[in-house]
Amino acid sequence: MGQEIEKKFLLKNENWRNLAQGKKYCQGYLSTEKGRTVRVRIIGERGFFTVKGPSEGETRLEFEYEIPVSEANEILEKLCHKPLIQKTRYKIPFEGFTWEVDEFEGENKGLVFAEIELQHEGETFAVPEWIDREVTDDPRYYNANLVTNPFCKW
Amino acid sequence: MGQEIEKKFLLKNENWRNLAQGKKYCQGYLSTEKGRTVRVRIIGERGFFTVKGPSEGETRLEFEYEIPVSEANEILEKLCHKPLIQKTRYKIPFEGFTWEVDEFEGENKGLVFAEIELQHEGETFAVPEWIDREVTDDPRYYNANLVTNPFCKW
Repeated sequence: MGQEIEKKFLLKNENWRNLAQGKKYCQGYLSTEKGRTVRVRIIGERGFFTVKGPSEGETRLEFEYEIPVSEANEILEKLCHKPLIQKTRYKIPFEGFTWEVDEFEGENKGLVFAEIELQHEGETFAVPEWIDREVTDDPRYYNANLVTNPFCKW
Repeated sequence: MGQEIEKKFLLKNENWRNLAQGKKYCQGYLSTEKGRTVRVRIIGERGFFTVKGPSEGETRLEFEYEIPVSEANEILEKLCHKPLIQKTRYKIPFEGFTWEVDEFEGENKGLVFAEIELQHEGETFAVPEWIDREVTDDPRYYNANLVTNPFCKW
């Protein structure tokens, strides 16, 4: 178990793009209820099952378990809400922190944002020049909400 | 992954009661959406995470994973829908099959029913004399529905 403290930002330019190699993510949701999100995710050849609690400011309870990728695939295809979320994630180190830039595909094509995970609320961090304004509090950017309200409908 | 084929029955009398020792189960649901039930369960000192697909007749897709009992407990307390389901399960062997009798507590106190799991639809099995009519098709008896519509309200 853990607590997730995440901040989300838009991007100012394309200067992040050559700083890391991207990895394909495919994920879907069994529940997008407020306060109990249940996600299944495939990263490369590995499957994961994740439960997230309600967002309280930047903090969220999170439980993650690895599961066989074949079963992750079957749950995604047969049981998760559609459309599935397809994205490429770029992990970019910057002054002691890792910025994760997600570039979406499918019905969310055109959407790109960055996340940084903190150890505790209020922790300070340096901001790369390619980072734009913060959107942590905007629920449209929650991945779970990108299923029901994808970027192409914004 | 697996497919679950289950039949559910009411009980005619108390003759099942001394045929097995019961074990305490505590379980809750992160999602009770039709077609994608997500359950967390503690049996004794072990925790489990289970995803079930839609019921199609007696058959249901089912995926189950063991998780640390302390995390199961935290998910049950903090994230699952209330009330949690508390029951004692008695596993009773009878002519090559195992009958599971569930005796509920809390808001479902007074409710008792038996389940038998089959290998394939249409498989034949012997019926103990303490088994009454079948209720497989009555959704009130789904454990997930006993959260929102417990036995005390029937």
